[in-house]
Amino acid sequence: MKVWIVGIKGSVATTAIAGVIASRRYNLPKFGMLTETEDFNNLYLVSLEELEFGGHEIRDVSLLDAVRHNVVENGYLSLDIVNDIKKDLNDIEVHLGTVINCGDFITRMASEKCKGATSIREIEERITNDILEFKRSDDCVMINLASAEPHFDIMPEHKTLESFESGLDKDLKWIPASSLYAYCAIKNNIPYINFTSSLGNDIPALKELAVEKNVPHYGKDGKTGETLVKAALAPMFKYRNLRVEGWTGYNVLGGFNGEVLSKEENVIDTTKDKARVINNCLGYNIYSTTDIIYYPPVKNKKVAWDLINFRGFLGYSMRMHFTWEGADSILAAPLVIDLIRLSHFAKKKKIGGLLKPFAFYFKHPIECDIGNLHEQCQMLINWIKSYK
Amino acid sequence: MKVWIVGIKGSVATTAIAGVIASRRYNLPKFGMLTETEDFNNLYLVSLEELEFGGHEIRDVSLLDAVRHNVVENGYLSLDIVNDIKKDLNDIEVHLGTVINCGDFITRMASEKCKGATSIREIEERITNDILEFKRSDDCVMINLASAEPHFDIMPEHKTLESFESGLDKDLKWIPASSLYAYCAIKNNIPYINFTSSLGNDIPALKELAVEKNVPHYGKDGKTGETLVKAALAPMFKYRNLRVEGWTGYNVLGGFNGEVLSKEENVIDTTKDKARVINNCLGYNIYSTTDIIYYPPVKNKKVAWDLINFRGFLGYSMRMHFTWEGADSILAAPLVIDLIRLSHFAKKKKIGGLLKPFAFYFKHPIECDIGNLHEQCQMLINWIKSYK
Amino acid sequence: MKVWIVGIKGSVATTAIAGVIASRRYNLPKFGMLTETEDFNNLYLVSLEELEFGGHEIRDVSLLDAVRHNVVENGYLSLDIVNDIKKDLNDIEVHLGTVINCGDFITRMASEKCKGATSIREIEERITNDILEFKRSDDCVMINLASAEPHFDIMPEHKTLESFESGLDKDLKWIPASSLYAYCAIKNNIPYINFTSSLGNDIPALKELAVEKNVPHYGKDGKTGETLVKAALAPMFKYRNLRVEGWTGYNVLGGFNGEVLSKEENVIDTTKDKARVINNCLGYNIYSTTDIIYYPPVKNKKVAWDLINFRGFLGYSMRMHFTWEGADSILAAPLVIDLIRLSHFAKKKKIGGLLKPFAFYFKHPIECDIGNLHEQCQMLINWIKSYK
Amino acid sequence: MKVWIVGIKGSVATTAIAGVIASRRYNLPKFGMLTETEDFNNLYLVSLEELEFGGHEIRDVSLLDAVRHNVVENGYLSLDIVNDIKKDLNDIEVHLGTVINCGDFITRMASEKCKGATSIREIEERITNDILEFKRSDDCVMINLASAEPHFDIMPEHKTLESFESGLDKDLKWIPASSLYAYCAIKNNIPYINFTSSLGNDIPALKELAVEKNVPHYGKDGKTGETLVKAALAPMFKYRNLRVEGWTGYNVLGGFNGEVLSKEENVIDTTKDKARVINNCLGYNIYSTTDIIYYPPVKNKKVAWDLINFRGFLGYSMRMHFTWEGADSILAAPLVIDLIRLSHFAKKKKIGGLLKPFAFYFKHPIECDIGNLHEQCQMLINWIKSYK
Repeated sequence: MKVWIVGIKGSVATTAIAGVIASRRYNLPKFGMLTETEDFNNLYLVSLEELEFGGHEIRDVSLLDAVRHNVVENGYLSLDIVNDIKKDLNDIEVHLGTVINCGDFITRMASEKCKGATSIREIEERITNDILEFKRSDDCVMINLASAEPHFDIMPEHKTLESFESGLDKDLKWIPASSLYAYCAIKNNIPYINFTSSLGNDIPALKELAVEKNVPHYGKDGKTGETLVKAALAPMFKYRNLRVEGWTGYNVLGGFNGEVLSKEENVIDTTKDKARVINNCLGYNIYSTTDIIYYPPVKNKKVAWDLINFRGFLGYSMRMHFTWEGADSILAAPLVIDLIRLSHFAKKKKIGGLLKPFAFYFKHPIECDIGNLHEQCQMLINWIKSYK
Repeated sequence: MKVWIVGIKGSVATTAIAGVIASRRYNLPKFGMLTETEDFNNLYLVSLEELEFGGHEIRDVSLLDAVRHNVVENGYLSLDIVNDIKKDLNDIEVHLGTVINCGDFITRMASEKCKGATSIREIEERITNDILEFKRSDDCVMINLASAEPHFDIMPEHKTLESFESGLDKDLKWIPASSLYAYCAIKNNIPYINFTSSLGNDIPALKELAVEKNVPHYGKDGKTGETLVKAALAPMFKYRNLRVEGWTGYNVLGGFNGEVLSKEENVIDTTKDKARVINNCLGYNIYSTTDIIYYPPVKNKKVAWDLINFRGFLGYSMRMHFTWEGADSILAAPLVIDLIRLSHFAKKKKIGGLLKPFAFYFKHPIECDIGNLHEQCQMLINWIKSYK
Repeated sequence: MKVWIVGIKGSVATTAIAGVIASRRYNLPKFGMLTETEDFNNLYLVSLEELEFGGHEIRDVSLLDAVRHNVVENGYLSLDIVNDIKKDLNDIEVHLGTVINCGDFITRMASEKCKGATSIREIEERITNDILEFKRSDDCVMINLASAEPHFDIMPEHKTLESFESGLDKDLKWIPASSLYAYCAIKNNIPYINFTSSLGNDIPALKELAVEKNVPHYGKDGKTGETLVKAALAPMFKYRNLRVEGWTGYNVLGGFNGEVLSKEENVIDTTKDKARVINNCLGYNIYSTTDIIYYPPVKNKKVAWDLINFRGFLGYSMRMHFTWEGADSILAAPLVIDLIRLSHFAKKKKIGGLLKPFAFYFKHPIECDIGNLHEQCQMLINWIKSYK
Repeated sequence: MKVWIVGIKGSVATTAIAGVIASRRYNLPKFGMLTETEDFNNLYLVSLEELEFGGHEIRDVSLLDAVRHNVVENGYLSLDIVNDIKKDLNDIEVHLGTVINCGDFITRMASEKCKGATSIREIEERITNDILEFKRSDDCVMINLASAEPHFDIMPEHKTLESFESGLDKDLKWIPASSLYAYCAIKNNIPYINFTSSLGNDIPALKELAVEKNVPHYGKDGKTGETLVKAALAPMFKYRNLRVEGWTGYNVLGGFNGEVLSKEENVIDTTKDKARVINNCLGYNIYSTTDIIYYPPVKNKKVAWDLINFRGFLGYSMRMHFTWEGADSILAAPLVIDLIRLSHFAKKKKIGGLLKPFAFYFKHPIECDIGNLHEQCQMLINWIKSYK
């Protein structure tokens, strides 16, 4: 089975790919993957051995160097192991992506060859050809692991598939790269998952297309660290009728992701989504702030500090704070593999449109109001059980 | 409706009593009480205005002084408010309790008059008279808020009601005070709640008696702080298949409770129960430690620091830690009021025996395997909804 | 002895004033003041009883209300005590200040009467009259406790006293309020202390004037919390040759100060100074970030979280983090009183110009390269001992 | 120059030895060593190349395996580097030590061959022979890096050298191993450093012997982590006249050291010394607790959490807490090398007796009242400068 990754040389992608390939030779723990737990037995999910990776990337670095930088330097896999899977990594097919509407910071990082001024339909055609050539007659899933794009508002032309396609024909360049990829995937019957905070498939026209084609898709923004804890912890205050007064979070992140997310233009959606999770779990709006700081010493191993103020009986003020020290890509990679397996499973079961039971995996689950992690988990398990 | 509190001059009891009485005159927030939320509407629970308190105590201090020390000095209520409810506090009926098998530390604190060498049946009779005189023809609930007793193993004589009662007749002094109180309550059709880690009603003979009499009862050890967080957070690791390697907790507590719990003999059950919660939520046993330190500067405002080590994808080690700064009695008092209201409700509905849906409130819910806070909450809400 | 406070209704000023006045009637601890320790005995410093306060303010609120809001609501003094010193507070003379070049945010807060368009010499005259009328023939000290002004670059006209005064004559409005106050004070032989991060007396022309007049002055930015810890802790890494890789600090502050400092335009100098302290203590430049977030739930009780990454033997990476939970005005007020007493002492001893031994009190001690708290403390103690 | 290490297969010893040997071939950072900083230039200290190691050990494991376990598994050096220095490690001379009065836990770990029942003079002779054979005509230093022994009180016979030696002759077994080693070293003109909390050289008779022989010696208990921070931070509260109410510390440590220190009998001295540091820095006694918990998941990378409560102006309560995440042996090893170099330097300069300027390196500096890290550092630097 084929997996097409947008942003294939990034930290999450390289950790997922190297991890999957290495685990074919070494007995490495698969913690973090739900699809390796008992609840997902007997579903005939695609095996790790069957996954064949390819993808788009905008940077010039080799995939092997990207693995060394992202996976070895952070201590996720030893250099010995990575040297051992070198050939498999070198065999992976990578094509040049697009940076359309990706913001100045990302555009500056991109290979010159990405930036050519062609029409949007020409870019679409190029992307589509890359994927279809890779896919051949196999099953294929596309997942977006590229850097966060700047915020992009939905426009009137995005509302219907017709106006959307006619806009493309007119070469209106009003969609970001993530949405163009999503369009290419869904149009070609390829399930699409948006693991980033970019706009991607969260456009009415694309949702319409997915329903029409009966293609499963979902997103957005993988829930890997601080937000995961929020979604588990905020319900506790609700259950106990403890009144949360405020929640302030400070995220310290090095590596390229940290640098992108600390840019004003790329950060907005991520932090807004994080506040939403808490309010959603509590049932009321609180004073909440979230900051992301680029701080190279921690590399990919994010440190988040959160302070929560709440009131109890007689109005007495109390608080808790937590420090989450999670390796970003180590937390994200198993979710990515789960999502690949499960969207492939959905396709086989002929389930199309938005996969709301996947809310568990996302900071901002599309068209889903449930923020409570426990309810999300229940929803996913129930869904999967209904197919057993 | 009457409420008989064992340990009525302790920190939790005085916070609950002063809080309830003060909230009749002042508009004080009732955060922390589930019975004040929408889910508990229309159940005709006893109102706060109807609660009439009385209880046993082993120390000589006046209730008013106890309120000043526990409630005012910790800043839970202002001196002005407490002065204003002085008369109500002074009217509360308090009798001398028993310290049988309560351990050296607690016995040393007790009034000399508690320590007289009488037979166990004489103590029982005295306690029963106190309660029945207070109760008169009203409904009544007993709740144990006394200090933690040293660990006490179940003995063969505890196994059946018959051997238990015959033991009492023989004046075998093999039960702790908490269990004697439980016996007096249940025998007299009074619902009994054990909010402490003491043995209390967790004895086969007493469970048999409760079934026979159809008296509702439950316990033990109110889940107020660090364990609450554990029960909300541990499931997150389970849901995400993140492998917890260890969990170490350090509890810093001042006040009298802190002093009692830091005594070797009184601490065992509390810390053992805390490990159980995590293992129960995770489904496997981890390396876990819990320490309780007496540290006067924090007074009743417990500070707990917990470190959690876990492994993710590829076996990579990560961790989180949290600091919980909760005011112990402020967190406990609303649970106490909830439990009073709900066990009275159960009695009215003719529900007898162990009230397992109350697991949500306890560190060590009797005969209940569910440690996950979310499942416990669901269980309670479902139970209450079935009576709507 | 007279004390003229710029920003007299702010949180620090009201805490200092109410604290001093209340401590005349009640036996309140004077922790935080060095001038109450043994090292400062026998210096005949002005006593707390002798201090008489007056000042400028730009907001319309009454001083009593400001005390209630800043001092009582934060729990620094009880309402009973403040009611008891009401008369003394009401007797304090307050005049309308100026908001020239104070930035949009502060200007918007100001009373309309502050904003009148008069010439800079007219403002100067008004301010001077206010102070001299208050001072009469007494000794007087001016201290700036107003909100932080936006950053202000030194200009060529600021370099000499001559060009500075001729600029004032030409009504060039190129100095912020803090510097105009400093000019008024120094010109009139009044010692001036800048406890804020505003430009104040840190202008060559004003330093020249102070030398000419032999008036003592110093600043800037009182070192109250996170920076205090930095100045104590950073030397440890230096002493032990542990290589600091990075230091990131997150400051959470409610109240009006928090709101001002979170404004982009007002924050620059504060955060820049904080990085300087660490580099200065270590002797090399590190990757360092400092953020200030406005977060109302903590009110005046600042919470700072700092993460420090460092390398040891064989290059191994380690880290520490700390949480500082300090009440901002409680920490600042005793320093303010110390500085009043000590600058008055300097004046009596005929010491003029920059008071570099006061570096201990400031985040950014003017023209002083010593950042190490221990050396700063030694410098202050040695200075004071030389006058014993 | 020869270095004899007692406890040569322990974590600190193996990190120091492997680190020194590896740094001869690789350019590894020497952070943590003061003797590599500018202040120690031009003193002709022994170079790292000249150090030749030997030692006593009670366990049967090979030194190479000990290095793999302690140094590689903790990630301090890579397996490649350790393989590369294998020959040098295998060449190191190790003899069987003694476990006399080392407590049950350590004795149980020891090789059977250590436990033979011989007279104390026979043990002394064996130890001395081992060292003198190793030393030959070279300079030599002994350092104690063995596990902490249980507390041992000074006895009347320990007071003078005469009664001490006559006790040995009578085969009175009233000294622990550490003191027997110290006796062997000092008697044979070998400088002795006690880096552990064991009794070692802190015996009047041994101090007398050291003066008589003019042999430099010092201890005890290397100051590596939490106590280091305490000694840097406690003075801050003193300088600012902030009144510390309490300080509670919780140390989480895995590995063998963690296991030993968590044993009741071995822990006493370590925790008592830690309280002393704070009181000493502050000038008054506070409520202070220190706990050490054995928690395998953190391995050698100790995590300490400290909570400090203090009062400021008007008696207002505040607090700070810190988490120290230091790799124990990485922090200790460079101090060990410093102490070897510096005691050798002292010997060359004919300085005998207690080396009080080394207080900087120890939790419990013998006969030294200075706890303030800054003063200790100054004392060391001044001492070294006096020999420049």
